[in-house]
Amino acid sequence: MAKEKKVESITSMDVDFAKWYTDVVKKAELVDYSSVKGCMVIRPYGYAIWENMQSDMDRRFKETGHENVYMPLLIPESLLNKEKDHVEGFAPEVAWVTIGGQEKLNERLAIRPTSEVLFCEHYAKVINSYRDLPKLYNQWCSVMRWEKTTRPFLRSSEFLWQEGHTMHETAEEAREETMKMLKVYEAFYKETLAIPAIIGKKTEKEKFAGAIETYTIEPMMHNGVALQGGTSHYFGNGFAKAFGIQFTGRDNTLQSPHQTSWGVSTRMLGALIMVHGDDNGLVLPPKVAPIQVVIVPIAAHKGGVIEKAEEIETSLKNAGIRVKTDKSDNSPGWKFAEYEMKGVPLRLEIGPKDIEKGQCVLVRRDSGEKVFTPLSELEEAVKENLQAVHDGLYQKALENLKEKTHTALTYDEFLETAKNKPGFIKAMWCGDEECENKIKDETGGVKSRCIPFEEEKLSDKCVCCGKRAKHMVYWGKQY
Amino acid sequence: MAKEKKVESITSMDVDFAKWYTDVVKKAELVDYSSVKGCMVIRPYGYAIWENMQSDMDRRFKETGHENVYMPLLIPESLLNKEKDHVEGFAPEVAWVTIGGQEKLNERLAIRPTSEVLFCEHYAKVINSYRDLPKLYNQWCSVMRWEKTTRPFLRSSEFLWQEGHTMHETAEEAREETMKMLKVYEAFYKETLAIPAIIGKKTEKEKFAGAIETYTIEPMMHNGVALQGGTSHYFGNGFAKAFGIQFTGRDNTLQSPHQTSWGVSTRMLGALIMVHGDDNGLVLPPKVAPIQVVIVPIAAHKGGVIEKAEEIETSLKNAGIRVKTDKSDNSPGWKFAEYEMKGVPLRLEIGPKDIEKGQCVLVRRDSGEKVFTPLSELEEAVKENLQAVHDGLYQKALENLKEKTHTALTYDEFLETAKNKPGFIKAMWCGDEECENKIKDETGGVKSRCIPFEEEKLSDKCVCCGKRAKHMVYWGKQY
Repeated sequence: MAKEKKVESITSMDVDFAKWYTDVVKKAELVDYSSVKGCMVIRPYGYAIWENMQSDMDRRFKETGHENVYMPLLIPESLLNKEKDHVEGFAPEVAWVTIGGQEKLNERLAIRPTSEVLFCEHYAKVINSYRDLPKLYNQWCSVMRWEKTTRPFLRSSEFLWQEGHTMHETAEEAREETMKMLKVYEAFYKETLAIPAIIGKKTEKEKFAGAIETYTIEPMMHNGVALQGGTSHYFGNGFAKAFGIQFTGRDNTLQSPHQTSWGVSTRMLGALIMVHGDDNGLVLPPKVAPIQVVIVPIAAHKGGVIEKAEEIETSLKNAGIRVKTDKSDNSPGWKFAEYEMKGVPLRLEIGPKDIEKGQCVLVRRDSGEKVFTPLSELEEAVKENLQAVHDGLYQKALENLKEKTHTALTYDEFLETAKNKPGFIKAMWCGDEECENKIKDETGGVKSRCIPFEEEKLSDKCVCCGKRAKHMVYWGKQY
Repeated sequence: MAKEKKVESITSMDVDFAKWYTDVVKKAELVDYSSVKGCMVIRPYGYAIWENMQSDMDRRFKETGHENVYMPLLIPESLLNKEKDHVEGFAPEVAWVTIGGQEKLNERLAIRPTSEVLFCEHYAKVINSYRDLPKLYNQWCSVMRWEKTTRPFLRSSEFLWQEGHTMHETAEEAREETMKMLKVYEAFYKETLAIPAIIGKKTEKEKFAGAIETYTIEPMMHNGVALQGGTSHYFGNGFAKAFGIQFTGRDNTLQSPHQTSWGVSTRMLGALIMVHGDDNGLVLPPKVAPIQVVIVPIAAHKGGVIEKAEEIETSLKNAGIRVKTDKSDNSPGWKFAEYEMKGVPLRLEIGPKDIEKGQCVLVRRDSGEKVFTPLSELEEAVKENLQAVHDGLYQKALENLKEKTHTALTYDEFLETAKNKPGFIKAMWCGDEECENKIKDETGGVKSRCIPFEEEKLSDKCVCCGKRAKHMVYWGKQY
């Protein structure tokens, strides 16, 4: 009964996806609202997922030679104004500090919306020779972008992220870095989050303020809406010139270094929820799940059950598995629903009969599959099942991605698809921003997501204007 | 020659301690200044030390049952005003956001100087029953306190820290937590930073804004100036009442929970520098050193030297030691000075003659001691020597603490000591704030540091006014 009550309290995805999302965020205890609009409290369970993401990604950054730093929270207005395209992109959404320690400031200070200019100011001081290059810095911090409409994880005024900012001797090296980090993100999404995605290049219209090229990773949500999952930018030496960053090259001439930046944020928590979640709540990929296995004792009052559960907990912990035993006096049914809601990948049930038979029951969160497992083989079985959950989630997400990827050869077909089939639309494009604008206006918001690295030649003509096509583009609505 | 040049460029501690400090901070590449006064750039080497501190401390927090969360950066003015003593303590040093996304805000927003009120606002929503207690939350973040005079790590407008905020069913439990976390800090200082310290209670005058009791850990710097190394506060239920946090107790009555908070910050980097550093630069305790062993190849151009160095590097890495080989074409002398400046605990020299003899040279940063070590016993020897450096640093710091702790029985003796002998002064105190003020005024800034847990009865009388003494107090100047 407890279980049914709990399940009833979430809106079904099919009834109202947006409501389902906020229900999950709330009931799985990921986030709480604060009294500043768009600034969220990330609760212990949500933050533990972020910590697991962070440590996995930080390891990948360090393995590729990057070092962490911390830059100031505040940016003087004059510093933010130094690169024209960049400031135009960010000025409308900046929060400004105008009073410090009871005095009005001479110059107002922006809370960082991103830190390109701070890194450049520092790099100007520490880069002198080609021997000082490359500089491969990363920062974990919070940033602020004043948003009108906000949603936990997906769009908030404050969010947590990492921002890599690197400087290189040559354009070629910087381009390699841009691509390398996009691939790091792709591998992280696949191997850690069990999320497949399209990777490619943003169009001129959609690229980052101040960048020459922006690359993106675009996973597909369960409801057919895309999400920009991470970006990697190549800047050329435009910022370097604006900030007077120069080095003496191998040929003894003064040169400007070439720059990249790349970032992912707590948005990834939104992607996790909307790619893997179901009507019973969150479904977490094992690699980032704060609890990988929850042990639920059955008939816990009977002699030996709690003891056995604890014994199992200890042995799994020693095997490096994140495990919790729920010994509370809530009913097993309530516990089943609770940990389903929280997306725990595996449930382990153990009762007097199981103990007699030297076994327990493992239940997979992704498929509901139940397996009776001999206690003598438990450690191995748990590891195999965690891997199976990861693989199962990835396959399901891949199917969803395929199912929600459509092709349009004519404009009518495009409009029809945009209207009736949520998801990506693959279609040819002439390269003209006017067609992007027209498509966006006439579809209620379908934008170019990216020009994929693996382009197909669907036809010779732009789906919108009929002129010669330059690229195949993934189009779609986005969060 | 390179070495001498390098060493010459640091001011000696004895000549000008403040200048020595800023020299070390700069030459060891820990920090850079930014264009916002009092906001620092923490460079890779400095940040790597902080990361090592963080991960060690975070483990201790989790082992004692705490969970990490993230609270918003911004606090509405009305929320900050909810607890009177608290806001009075912080209002003068707050930075205010008054414009968000091009619009003037209706209510100004403080950048968090500390997050008590944010935690309380959240706790009011999630605490309902004694079953919800205790709540043991911690946050790693940056905070902002608008400072007029700033110094890297010691006093800056923005700094990084952790702040624990916990809620408990009873006053007794909360007091236990306050004390437990002070002991966690003490253990961290001793076991990880190799720093001994005095722990005790702050006087009424010196306690935290809004707290009932503040406990502190006070290490002694090399120059006889104290530093508040961390604090742990007991709040009673004052905040809880102001914020309407209530729970149904075991007896079914509505009660207010009892609260603590505790924090340490990047100031600890300042303590590290000033406790262990010397005229050759930084000296890092091995547990937090980003590089524990630097390998310097001697006559590196000769066959087999680089290969041997790399072989050693791999074997030490596999043994879990943080090791770096400097293969640059700088001279060995330059390298010696460079890594001494950076405080690397052990230097490993390996040249053709060593290879012939199957040995290498280990040089301790703390003592300069050289040991010839057979390569067959290297892993063991490195571990032993790292431990020896840790122990050596702790002993040296303990001697400094003892040497710089004086006793004053009369006021004349107190004034004389304050004038001529930098360090702690142990002296009796009547408990009256007037005496604290008088002492501060007449000594140019000597304040009560704490009432230690282990009080000695030096006499019956207050060292200042001669009235009956209540406590023995540690006094001293502070950073």
